[in-house]
Amino acid sequence: MDTALEEKRLQEITALCKNRGFIFQSSEIYGGLRSAYDYGPLGVELKRNIINEWWRDMVYSRQNVVGLDASIIMHPKVWEASGHRAGFADPLVDCLICKERFRADKAPKKIAGEAVTIQLADKGKAKEALDFIEKNLSLQLTRNKKNIEGAVASERGYVCLNCNSPFLSEERQFNLMFRSFMGPVDPMEEVANAVENGNFEGLKGKDLRQAMEKILNPSTVFLRPETAQAMFVQFNNIQRSMSLKLPFGIAQAGKSFRNEITTRYFIFRSCEFEQMEMEFFCHPDEDDQWLDFWKKERMNWWHRYANKPENFKFRQHSPDELAHYSKDCYDVEYKFPWGWDELEGIANRTNYDLKKHEEASGKRLQYRDPESGEMYFPHVIEPAAGATRAVLAYLDDALDQDEIPDSKGELQKRTVLRLHPRLAPYKVAILPLLRKEGMPEKASQVADQFFQAGINARYDEVNAIGKRYRRHDEIGTPYCITIDQDTIEDNTVTIRDRDTTKQERISIEEAVDIVKNRLAEG
Amino acid sequence: MDTALEEKRLQEITALCKNRGFIFQSSEIYGGLRSAYDYGPLGVELKRNIINEWWRDMVYSRQNVVGLDASIIMHPKVWEASGHRAGFADPLVDCLICKERFRADKAPKKIAGEAVTIQLADKGKAKEALDFIEKNLSLQLTRNKKNIEGAVASERGYVCLNCNSPFLSEERQFNLMFRSFMGPVDPMEEVANAVENGNFEGLKGKDLRQAMEKILNPSTVFLRPETAQAMFVQFNNIQRSMSLKLPFGIAQAGKSFRNEITTRYFIFRSCEFEQMEMEFFCHPDEDDQWLDFWKKERMNWWHRYANKPENFKFRQHSPDELAHYSKDCYDVEYKFPWGWDELEGIANRTNYDLKKHEEASGKRLQYRDPESGEMYFPHVIEPAAGATRAVLAYLDDALDQDEIPDSKGELQKRTVLRLHPRLAPYKVAILPLLRKEGMPEKASQVADQFFQAGINARYDEVNAIGKRYRRHDEIGTPYCITIDQDTIEDNTVTIRDRDTTKQERISIEEAVDIVKNRLAEG
Repeated sequence: MDTALEEKRLQEITALCKNRGFIFQSSEIYGGLRSAYDYGPLGVELKRNIINEWWRDMVYSRQNVVGLDASIIMHPKVWEASGHRAGFADPLVDCLICKERFRADKAPKKIAGEAVTIQLADKGKAKEALDFIEKNLSLQLTRNKKNIEGAVASERGYVCLNCNSPFLSEERQFNLMFRSFMGPVDPMEEVANAVENGNFEGLKGKDLRQAMEKILNPSTVFLRPETAQAMFVQFNNIQRSMSLKLPFGIAQAGKSFRNEITTRYFIFRSCEFEQMEMEFFCHPDEDDQWLDFWKKERMNWWHRYANKPENFKFRQHSPDELAHYSKDCYDVEYKFPWGWDELEGIANRTNYDLKKHEEASGKRLQYRDPESGEMYFPHVIEPAAGATRAVLAYLDDALDQDEIPDSKGELQKRTVLRLHPRLAPYKVAILPLLRKEGMPEKASQVADQFFQAGINARYDEVNAIGKRYRRHDEIGTPYCITIDQDTIEDNTVTIRDRDTTKQERISIEEAVDIVKNRLAEG
Repeated sequence: MDTALEEKRLQEITALCKNRGFIFQSSEIYGGLRSAYDYGPLGVELKRNIINEWWRDMVYSRQNVVGLDASIIMHPKVWEASGHRAGFADPLVDCLICKERFRADKAPKKIAGEAVTIQLADKGKAKEALDFIEKNLSLQLTRNKKNIEGAVASERGYVCLNCNSPFLSEERQFNLMFRSFMGPVDPMEEVANAVENGNFEGLKGKDLRQAMEKILNPSTVFLRPETAQAMFVQFNNIQRSMSLKLPFGIAQAGKSFRNEITTRYFIFRSCEFEQMEMEFFCHPDEDDQWLDFWKKERMNWWHRYANKPENFKFRQHSPDELAHYSKDCYDVEYKFPWGWDELEGIANRTNYDLKKHEEASGKRLQYRDPESGEMYFPHVIEPAAGATRAVLAYLDDALDQDEIPDSKGELQKRTVLRLHPRLAPYKVAILPLLRKEGMPEKASQVADQFFQAGINARYDEVNAIGKRYRRHDEIGTPYCITIDQDTIEDNTVTIRDRDTTKQERISIEEAVDIVKNRLAEG
């Protein structure tokens, strides 16, 4: 795709978000915070609507899925068992070629200058890698099918454990997780005391770090990097208190936090983000069929609110891309301005997580079949969607320009946000045609009907009616109700459809029900 | 109140929460995390319902209040300007008598052994203090009206800056806020390097601490200790993008984090909690009338869902209790098992916050009246409610025991959770009388109607019907629909009311509408 075009599209979306009250940079007046965003009056409604639609579909429309809202701060042992904390004490390295991240001490050892063959997954990837090496490293190597030849090991004495490449990032401590400290006393104070008392004297490198960790660890907590682990950790409490029989699911929507190394594409990859995850527990023999089931259900959900369903597709993970515990995984991808990228992962996680947590906690996390008495670890199908990414995808899907006739019948360009009516921030705008002749009073009465019905409506009397229509087109309001001279006489109003711009005359009494019904259908 | 009784009541609530899937301890299988809780399948619904009712009342039912959902991680400068970070670098002390927390270096200096008179706010407080000193410090002092005489300054050389008391806690660094570090590189690594390189050599106490802070500060971020500051920081973006005219409000519901020194009373005081806050911006001349307005609105809201409205009351802050920038403040208190305690604070914050953030950021945070051209800092009325506390208050308000006749007409004790129907986790239980004669199939069809309408319904066929009624009474399900022999013949079902236990016969077709209407009225 054309880089200038893709940047322009993303800029259009970002500008709309800032100018129209969807999304602002966090702490903007203080220069902004890298990769954290605030959802303004329209953004908070769009996000709430997306999450509520997900919750309704996942929890309220099914017999066998229940909800959970776990704490963001979780016990460090959860993240040790899950594997998220691994590599904390050891420096990690990124392969510049295949993007694998690995512990330096686990990598294949080489002698500096030794010839190495870089092995990629397929010919296409090898071509890409050759390109990258030429452009970014100014080296001329040769390709032989899916291998690249002619590279030599560097002085650091190891290569990528995945592809054999000697082209690697610096070694560094990565903090994927946000760490914090619980308890009233500041552990930094204790570190300072230890320095002052000479407790670290003579210690170096890893030993010093470990002595410091010993002080920090007792109060260490982490912000969850995913909502999923809480469903495993609370599996027993939930299964028992709700008397649930397999198969059943536990759904959770909420914030997660990752210290992303590269944050990019507006809200797409940010440090603070929102997830909608569900863990579906089933008998090990049935995991393949449930994976199929959830693939269909989830794609139906994404399509339901889309103008262009062709921009949503599945991508199956290749075997070398799968996490080692995962049997199969499909990403739902959306065609973002920069290309296809991930919205949701639907994975067969097998029994990995429950098993790990049983081992680490010593608490039984198996399921006993009430009829057969069989005791086993359920397998888990996980549809894990990004709520933050859904906001961006549906904004991109909805933002459109077309031409509509003005009052003189001449075609005029307009910006229109074709959000699904149930996702739209305002469901209806209430507009007095003029600011006189009793129209504002009448319009306020109509607005009150919507306020009392709990439907998010906006009363708006500023500027000419055409301009107000355009304003509501731009923020995605699906229906505009206009109060005019006739309203005063016969209690009828016009209702205008955002997408067709067609107007109908309806009675005030039926206005709320008409909007309600269209929302239910939409 | 009787301590044993109050403990028993809180235990009853806690046990119900754990056994019935409302609230579990966070990370319980790993020994639990101090003061963080997970909301199970029923708790997440109760909490969602409370927050949705608040949002509907605050945002959807009004013309002049809009929503916001800001990031939890905010820029450190926000918390410097707001005053939350003050005292970070200086040790703080708690007065054991009046509970004031203050910086030791700001306290009145005394010579050890010098006589000091402790001055309390009134006679009642002085009596309490005398009691406390006798019981806990084993000292016999004398009271003279609201003063206590006979104490002497201790060796630490200062007394409480509020009441003059020499009875003080240890000096310590308090971390009210959870601190974390943003960015891929671990700043502890850099501290370790500085130790190893001898950069801290010769440094002591405060100087050492400051040198360490210099390393930590660039990546330091804080988890918000309240949602409120984001409304001030984003005041301009929101006012402009939404073209809002004063008076208007910005509402936000979300999680906040405080490193509470004393966590207690189950979820009442916890480190991770959820707030529902609204900042209402108005002309400085109108702040008193808007404070009155919001007091009434908010108390109406609390009463709407209560069985015993007499357990909610206002308590005006006394002048010495008000924050220095606050002109007036009322707490909404609820009569918890341990006594009256805070649910919400409704404060006149004047223009303090906008002014502070304008000073600190250099960005104008004033409002220009579009008609008069007048430029000024609006005053702010803040109704700030605890969503977590609302969960506990409404559970306590609802949990009841009564006696109802069993199938033989004999009175039997039952536990019933009299939650307002709109707050109840399940709105309706769908119960086939028997697991045969086509009843389960018919019941599933009825359940599907509710699932499709997005109403949280529970299909339940296990145990005798009486036991199932009792189970749903205990978790607050307001309506039970039973499918029996007659249903198969004439498509009618019974609907049972949780509170009266009365049953009516209705047709299947109207079941969803009847429940919907009762929920709307409730």
